[in-house]
Amino acid sequence: MTNESAAPLDAAAIETLKGVTTATLTTILLKKGLRNVWIRGAMPLRHRQERVVGPAFTFRFVPAREDLATPASWGSPISTRAAIEAMPEGAFAVIDAMGIADAGVFGDILCARMVKRKSVGMITDGVVRDLEGVLGTGLPVWCRGAAAPPSVAGLTFVGWEETVGCGGVCVIPGDTIVADRDGAVVIPAAVLGDVLKEAPEQERMEGWIVDEVGRGEVLPGLYPMNESTRARYDKWKDSQ
Amino acid sequence: MTNESAAPLDAAAIETLKGVTTATLTTILLKKGLRNVWIRGAMPLRHRQERVVGPAFTFRFVPAREDLATPASWGSPISTRAAIEAMPEGAFAVIDAMGIADAGVFGDILCARMVKRKSVGMITDGVVRDLEGVLGTGLPVWCRGAAAPPSVAGLTFVGWEETVGCGGVCVIPGDTIVADRDGAVVIPAAVLGDVLKEAPEQERMEGWIVDEVGRGEVLPGLYPMNESTRARYDKWKDSQ
Amino acid sequence: MTNESAAPLDAAAIETLKGVTTATLTTILLKKGLRNVWIRGAMPLRHRQERVVGPAFTFRFVPAREDLATPASWGSPISTRAAIEAMPEGAFAVIDAMGIADAGVFGDILCARMVKRKSVGMITDGVVRDLEGVLGTGLPVWCRGAAAPPSVAGLTFVGWEETVGCGGVCVIPGDTIVADRDGAVVIPAAVLGDVLKEAPEQERMEGWIVDEVGRGEVLPGLYPMNESTRARYDKWKDSQ
Amino acid sequence: MTNESAAPLDAAAIETLKGVTTATLTTILLKKGLRNVWIRGAMPLRHRQERVVGPAFTFRFVPAREDLATPASWGSPISTRAAIEAMPEGAFAVIDAMGIADAGVFGDILCARMVKRKSVGMITDGVVRDLEGVLGTGLPVWCRGAAAPPSVAGLTFVGWEETVGCGGVCVIPGDTIVADRDGAVVIPAAVLGDVLKEAPEQERMEGWIVDEVGRGEVLPGLYPMNESTRARYDKWKDSQ
Amino acid sequence: MTNESAAPLDAAAIETLKGVTTATLTTILLKKGLRNVWIRGAMPLRHRQERVVGPAFTFRFVPAREDLATPASWGSPISTRAAIEAMPEGAFAVIDAMGIADAGVFGDILCARMVKRKSVGMITDGVVRDLEGVLGTGLPVWCRGAAAPPSVAGLTFVGWEETVGCGGVCVIPGDTIVADRDGAVVIPAAVLGDVLKEAPEQERMEGWIVDEVGRGEVLPGLYPMNESTRARYDKWKDSQ
Amino acid sequence: MTNESAAPLDAAAIETLKGVTTATLTTILLKKGLRNVWIRGAMPLRHRQERVVGPAFTFRFVPAREDLATPASWGSPISTRAAIEAMPEGAFAVIDAMGIADAGVFGDILCARMVKRKSVGMITDGVVRDLEGVLGTGLPVWCRGAAAPPSVAGLTFVGWEETVGCGGVCVIPGDTIVADRDGAVVIPAAVLGDVLKEAPEQERMEGWIVDEVGRGEVLPGLYPMNESTRARYDKWKDSQ
Repeated sequence: MTNESAAPLDAAAIETLKGVTTATLTTILLKKGLRNVWIRGAMPLRHRQERVVGPAFTFRFVPAREDLATPASWGSPISTRAAIEAMPEGAFAVIDAMGIADAGVFGDILCARMVKRKSVGMITDGVVRDLEGVLGTGLPVWCRGAAAPPSVAGLTFVGWEETVGCGGVCVIPGDTIVADRDGAVVIPAAVLGDVLKEAPEQERMEGWIVDEVGRGEVLPGLYPMNESTRARYDKWKDSQ
Repeated sequence: MTNESAAPLDAAAIETLKGVTTATLTTILLKKGLRNVWIRGAMPLRHRQERVVGPAFTFRFVPAREDLATPASWGSPISTRAAIEAMPEGAFAVIDAMGIADAGVFGDILCARMVKRKSVGMITDGVVRDLEGVLGTGLPVWCRGAAAPPSVAGLTFVGWEETVGCGGVCVIPGDTIVADRDGAVVIPAAVLGDVLKEAPEQERMEGWIVDEVGRGEVLPGLYPMNESTRARYDKWKDSQ
Repeated sequence: MTNESAAPLDAAAIETLKGVTTATLTTILLKKGLRNVWIRGAMPLRHRQERVVGPAFTFRFVPAREDLATPASWGSPISTRAAIEAMPEGAFAVIDAMGIADAGVFGDILCARMVKRKSVGMITDGVVRDLEGVLGTGLPVWCRGAAAPPSVAGLTFVGWEETVGCGGVCVIPGDTIVADRDGAVVIPAAVLGDVLKEAPEQERMEGWIVDEVGRGEVLPGLYPMNESTRARYDKWKDSQ
Repeated sequence: MTNESAAPLDAAAIETLKGVTTATLTTILLKKGLRNVWIRGAMPLRHRQERVVGPAFTFRFVPAREDLATPASWGSPISTRAAIEAMPEGAFAVIDAMGIADAGVFGDILCARMVKRKSVGMITDGVVRDLEGVLGTGLPVWCRGAAAPPSVAGLTFVGWEETVGCGGVCVIPGDTIVADRDGAVVIPAAVLGDVLKEAPEQERMEGWIVDEVGRGEVLPGLYPMNESTRARYDKWKDSQ
Repeated sequence: MTNESAAPLDAAAIETLKGVTTATLTTILLKKGLRNVWIRGAMPLRHRQERVVGPAFTFRFVPAREDLATPASWGSPISTRAAIEAMPEGAFAVIDAMGIADAGVFGDILCARMVKRKSVGMITDGVVRDLEGVLGTGLPVWCRGAAAPPSVAGLTFVGWEETVGCGGVCVIPGDTIVADRDGAVVIPAAVLGDVLKEAPEQERMEGWIVDEVGRGEVLPGLYPMNESTRARYDKWKDSQ
Repeated sequence: MTNESAAPLDAAAIETLKGVTTATLTTILLKKGLRNVWIRGAMPLRHRQERVVGPAFTFRFVPAREDLATPASWGSPISTRAAIEAMPEGAFAVIDAMGIADAGVFGDILCARMVKRKSVGMITDGVVRDLEGVLGTGLPVWCRGAAAPPSVAGLTFVGWEETVGCGGVCVIPGDTIVADRDGAVVIPAAVLGDVLKEAPEQERMEGWIVDEVGRGEVLPGLYPMNESTRARYDKWKDSQ
């Protein structure tokens, strides 16, 4: 990454990214050589979940050990409770559960508190517990599914705002997370500026192509565009 | 388990457990040192499935062998048909499919008969076949999904009312199964009495905490409760 | 397979198969010794998807290699685009993605074009991208799920109308694919004739058995039928 | 299996099978329509392990539950200890561990006792503990590897001489197990007679083909044999 | 863990543990309620590897991201090189590779340096690269296998001496690692004292039992011991 | 890949590559942006296997279907036998078994014939059968292990010299395969020239670094080299 293009994830940037599919974002990142930015296995918990955008706030778990992972540990200063209280408004919680699916990272109580703290969403390579309660809080969640056992049955919480792995991807606090019905992509902070510049045009172009297919155009020459198609597209774009 | 507390799973017990989430039950069991009681990978087949409670009635399958697993075997005295006819009213069928997902344990015909026999539900670490037909019978089902091939394509039935493994958990006939939207938990017979005693209070306490979060309380000191929170809670409880 | 019974998959055959569940078809094929005809892991993308029938038109991918799998490759003569333009009307696209789930085989643009070309459906042991867009095209799709990254992030396309593996099953161009809510079955061309002959009777018989169960009949002697049950059934059938 | 051919696994049968590779045996069983007879994932623990043959004596485990799987349970009447004392001389222990690899089914003490009881070998789809101790007993073992934790850490023993699943295969007490450096095959009791009749000829034929390849013969026409090759082979066989 | 028994891992403690199998240690830890202390999947790289004991010194990796995991990153202050230079003499390197097996955590150069720094061993839930070179350094290694690609092809290093997960187990810097031919166990610092006290007696007792089995004793009453066996054992112990 | 550097894999090139570890080759390929060139899961069958180099000659299998994968199919013109007879001298057989491990791709007869045809080696993401026989032929083999069942029990052969996937990597006929004790790497034809140029220098440099570590040098500044280290190295190189 010689071409750094850091940009703040301000309200305008969030607005822009809300209009771009993760399909388009992964395509743009691939062109920049970033292939491993797709969080595997985390799907939206809610049917017809809207797209959510926010800066990553990370939580790190390791596997449970009986001497550490006890209900008593919930009161420790290094607890998920303390971490949640440290979240800034608008943050996207990214929870490294090491893929453990036998115990839920959070249930309704913690999700309800995250909503109060104006978290925009939560993603984990683990699962949630009390599915119905979690859906009831309204928090947008991406995860591998649900399991009732409490986190201490399978997980030990070790810290927050560290670099983590989540669904096979490295996430650094402050990276941007965009999640929609396909799942979630990580935009490294250093390339956010470039992505913000290129994404709207890519979306417009793909939208035009879909319309062309709707008009009966054949694929070769259209997608990707050959020169004559591009000329037609440029003409259309100028006319907008 | 020095502290045995067997209790009958009578109508009152079922009524009590219908009001307790599997999330709460697994928490209570964890406090008793029971960590491996969550049936992995079995999710409700029906959208918005209600909670179901019943005593386990077990079925055991092993992998298919071409000389044994044939349509002809369906007529043998050791058959799933005979097992279903042996089920008492109110039983929860627990089917050990050794996690095999290439052949459905049961389809619409057997599920329809289980409904007739007043089975309250069925859970398997395998899959069902003829998803639409099974849903049509109204039987509450927890499983890993669906596959059309008949059981004999991948499974050989060997017996019923034996101790089995299901989703990584040991189930003994007569244990209590509670299943809801998160999945299913096994309550060993010896601890049922204690669970019945503790569960309603745990539910009430967690409900009060959710309400406190809704009023804007912060997590530390609330969940788990510190002394002053507990005093507030006790006062509230007395006032009910 | 000494007993060859090839038959054309004409409009009448398609009509017949649309009335037969994949559960019934896999049972019939099993009786003919065909156990490995069930495409594993590919489930309908759309809720309440109707049954779809068509001749297999195959696509073959191998894992991505950075020197081959580039956006530029989309314009190559051996491209998914060229393959789609080669599909005859009524074909069922069968896509061998080697089970890779980190990149979507197709998104909305290619699915939209397949609809224009009157493809009846698509099945893959991989995933699609732009779930919402793909659903918007109306193409019936069976797959393992969704992932936003473009195919070139994980897959290299190598050809079409070759014998492929899909979901652990061998598919030869021209085999018949029948897919419903359980998933999809492959009917080898050589046995289509026999299957067409036997399937409607099997469906009728199972339907009658379901009705008998509804009337309170016990399973032993009913399913499978003993002689007296068969006599009753034959009488009923004659009366229709 | 219309063609039943049960035969006793007497000393002569054992001697015959000791001279036949599992590769040849699986080929013969495949020709009889038996495809699922290969125990998956169980490899010989000892380097250059000789072939071992014996009748299956089965052990069945289910996953551990903390109230059942305790060191105290080792003294229960339904224990692995009691099962070992029930083994007849010459038996091949087949241990269904449900594929659990986190706890060893047996260590040096139980294996040493099995040697004393003249067990010919042991196979499991789980692992052993105290690898060095187990090797020291001299018992031939096929397994998935080693793990130090005692069986009660992951497994609960439930009974012996039941039909079990082991490595994805159904094993019935009394079936014949043949294990060599490739792993292990199950010969169902009903086909043992036929296998004993066909195996030596198959071995001789394959040996002759290997020699022919050594002499520079090309594969087509040799393997499988065409008519002229078979004539040459028959002549050679007559000359022996 | 109310019963804390921290003890220093001094030379005497190491000497004691070198004489105790991991099979015995996991049994002792299980009796203390510690079930999840076995590092899964990490086997000794060298044939007939001797037992190794040392305090854990942890390394943490997350999945590679193309903008971070580059050969250039090897020169960063947060690098595996800096971590190795920070290791005290006698340390046991514990490397959290998140189970990634497509890139080797270390090769011959880093292992050679660890030998120079008097590291006693290394364990990872990932793999090493340049198997032959690593064996040549003489460093005792436990891992899942080998893969040639450099760590940056699949992994990003993020820090050292943090609490990590390794092979499904939580490891805290300073915990004791004991590894032998079965694999490796973690002894939490707080229970080391108790383990040191109980382990030698457990070893002696199991050794005596093995000898008894060698003399032809039957298992029931011997293992676990009944009262009369214990009396015999106590007498023998007194006579030593 | 803008920088094409195709070169013939002649005797000199093979000689060069025999002196380069797969660890070094994957490092060089990574620097060229080629990350997915490591064949996963295929390890040398023989202890202390020497490095082998040759051009890929591909075989493609799909899963077995009972109507296709029969012993009779071994005589078909599209058979593994015909493919082996088509192999040129010096070829490295690359066998796409779709990762199926339940049936061996080849046994002793076919491997013996490959030796006669002067094949230099064989690699598969599946397994071999008749381990002892295969080792007896002397053919260098990389695979996932062994299983006795014949290929037709799990696999159908569909063709040779096609682009295939093997162990998660795309292999095109004529790519160069280098395999050693770590496993195997694919060098795409287009970059072979560059690799041949850079590899010997990389090996020399790493060898010098290993020697420096042996002399007690610390890692930072040495690996990767800082300027003063590079000057020392260059001086040493000039002195050779």
